[in-house]
Amino acid sequence: MLSEFDIIRTCFEQEGLAAIPGDSVIQGIGDDCALIKVPANKMLAFSMDTLVEDIHFPATAAPGLVASRALAVNLSDLAATGAKPLVFTLGLTIPEANQPWLEAFAAGLKAMAKEFNCYLIGGDMSRGALTITIQVQGLVDDGQAILRSGACPGDRIYITESLGCAALALLMFEGKLNDVLPEEHEIINLAFYRPQPRIDAALTVAGLVSAGIDISDGLLADLGHICEQSKCSATLNLTQIPLHPLVEKHLGRAAGLSKALSAGDDYELILTVSAAQESLFLDAVSVLPEKFTCIGEITEHNEAHKVSCIDENGSMVSSTRADAGGYMHFQGDD
Amino acid sequence: MLSEFDIIRTCFEQEGLAAIPGDSVIQGIGDDCALIKVPANKMLAFSMDTLVEDIHFPATAAPGLVASRALAVNLSDLAATGAKPLVFTLGLTIPEANQPWLEAFAAGLKAMAKEFNCYLIGGDMSRGALTITIQVQGLVDDGQAILRSGACPGDRIYITESLGCAALALLMFEGKLNDVLPEEHEIINLAFYRPQPRIDAALTVAGLVSAGIDISDGLLADLGHICEQSKCSATLNLTQIPLHPLVEKHLGRAAGLSKALSAGDDYELILTVSAAQESLFLDAVSVLPEKFTCIGEITEHNEAHKVSCIDENGSMVSSTRADAGGYMHFQGDD
Repeated sequence: MLSEFDIIRTCFEQEGLAAIPGDSVIQGIGDDCALIKVPANKMLAFSMDTLVEDIHFPATAAPGLVASRALAVNLSDLAATGAKPLVFTLGLTIPEANQPWLEAFAAGLKAMAKEFNCYLIGGDMSRGALTITIQVQGLVDDGQAILRSGACPGDRIYITESLGCAALALLMFEGKLNDVLPEEHEIINLAFYRPQPRIDAALTVAGLVSAGIDISDGLLADLGHICEQSKCSATLNLTQIPLHPLVEKHLGRAAGLSKALSAGDDYELILTVSAAQESLFLDAVSVLPEKFTCIGEITEHNEAHKVSCIDENGSMVSSTRADAGGYMHFQGDD
Repeated sequence: MLSEFDIIRTCFEQEGLAAIPGDSVIQGIGDDCALIKVPANKMLAFSMDTLVEDIHFPATAAPGLVASRALAVNLSDLAATGAKPLVFTLGLTIPEANQPWLEAFAAGLKAMAKEFNCYLIGGDMSRGALTITIQVQGLVDDGQAILRSGACPGDRIYITESLGCAALALLMFEGKLNDVLPEEHEIINLAFYRPQPRIDAALTVAGLVSAGIDISDGLLADLGHICEQSKCSATLNLTQIPLHPLVEKHLGRAAGLSKALSAGDDYELILTVSAAQESLFLDAVSVLPEKFTCIGEITEHNEAHKVSCIDENGSMVSSTRADAGGYMHFQGDD
């Protein structure tokens, strides 16, 4: 019978998941520290995100999907910064060394690691309530990082793909969604557990955008973060905001839009682009698989209205953060 | 009243704890990723450790002490690698935003951050069972990292300071220690919560040692890790192993030695030194505040006896890992 130590070693030090020493990786798993070499003309970007059972995912979730989500939400932060994934570390707290669970979890990580060329280089295992902390490390050229702080009045606001499907998934998990077809179930489920980090898109446009963020808290809140750090405001054209087709189908446009504005977890990118760069930007993104949609414009700082919205009648409705809970919940109001 | 978001921001983005942009720190807290610049002739070393309430520390522990321990055990990994601390990230999972607890926890982190010149650069906060994951980042000159894999037969084995006091603390917490004087209580308590990362010592000798590790699992287990990765064995002179004076006083030499061999948490360093470097090594450490003691020698690989011990009678007793539980428990046997 395998010991707990062996199970962990077998699951996480396997080929295809563990980083192999090479150009950037000097020392992988198995010493007190991992060691990497950052090229002279690059910066190291890193981000840490934690998922907790029953808070960020239900206890019944498939371990491979939990792993996908844990790594995807971190990779999405690299995308938001325009950084290329390099390696990740894993802090895994588990109630017991459940071999089938660990194997499925590791398989989920391995698939993501391979797809994004980002391998495991170290971490820590502990006993306790299921909690997954991942830190991703990525590389970005000097001076090319996409920050929240670079937007200027007049910049156009773009987002990748469409919004709302992760929020739809939460409704589905809660049993509040009726008549979901089997093929829809899979799409909605993966929208939550396997959001697509927009790495290639971000790397393509990194030199052409003025600011960026990924949508983890909701469109209003995350665009609000750009406005705060860029000391400006923004106007959104509500009619331009692309909803996922299944959101339109199951919730309708109005309720779907509300989800897109205030629910998070879609992990699409918000990118701002100056008028001078816009045609280059549109040329660059035209070859990408992702659809990019212009949904509004950065405006001069307006203390009263950080993010304003223009509705389908052309009327201005302001949206300010209504929930002091901050990082957990944001809501639009008028 | 402060919102949860404000409490977190106030506690962790305070001056003296949060990293300030400068030579190495390009972007600190507040964007999707932190960004650092690694000098061209250096490598980035990093290590992640998690502490879980009721597993790694009692629920009644003072939050400032928990913070000290969480950062110290990570910094000790940098010491074991000969890396100079740079910045750290914090993944904090807490049942609720308890302001006094968070303030005391942040104060503990701040004191350590200042002492080791290693500041907070990002992280994540979640709700859940109290779990603290820290990743430290440090810098080490190319080719100068201390690894577990460099020991050779004939190398002398040194340790810093003395062993056993963290194990004594666990006995004290369990109420199994009698007649502890008040001034002893403080010393023993801090040995557990505030182990001293041997950063300066490691930086002083980094170019002179062949291998190193910090003692987190116990002397036998951690020396065993060096032997495994260096493909050699080791002989320890039990009479040379320095015990903390309070361990000698409260447990006596024999029981104290057993704790030193198989209980962890002291976070002293094991360093191996070749005969050719030994006099330079001894010169270098002579100016350090830490006492260094030679406790044995690296030997040719011996499958049957990874770590052998010579007892007070000059008799050889072998010690092999007896507990397949691995990272949690190791015991010496003969």
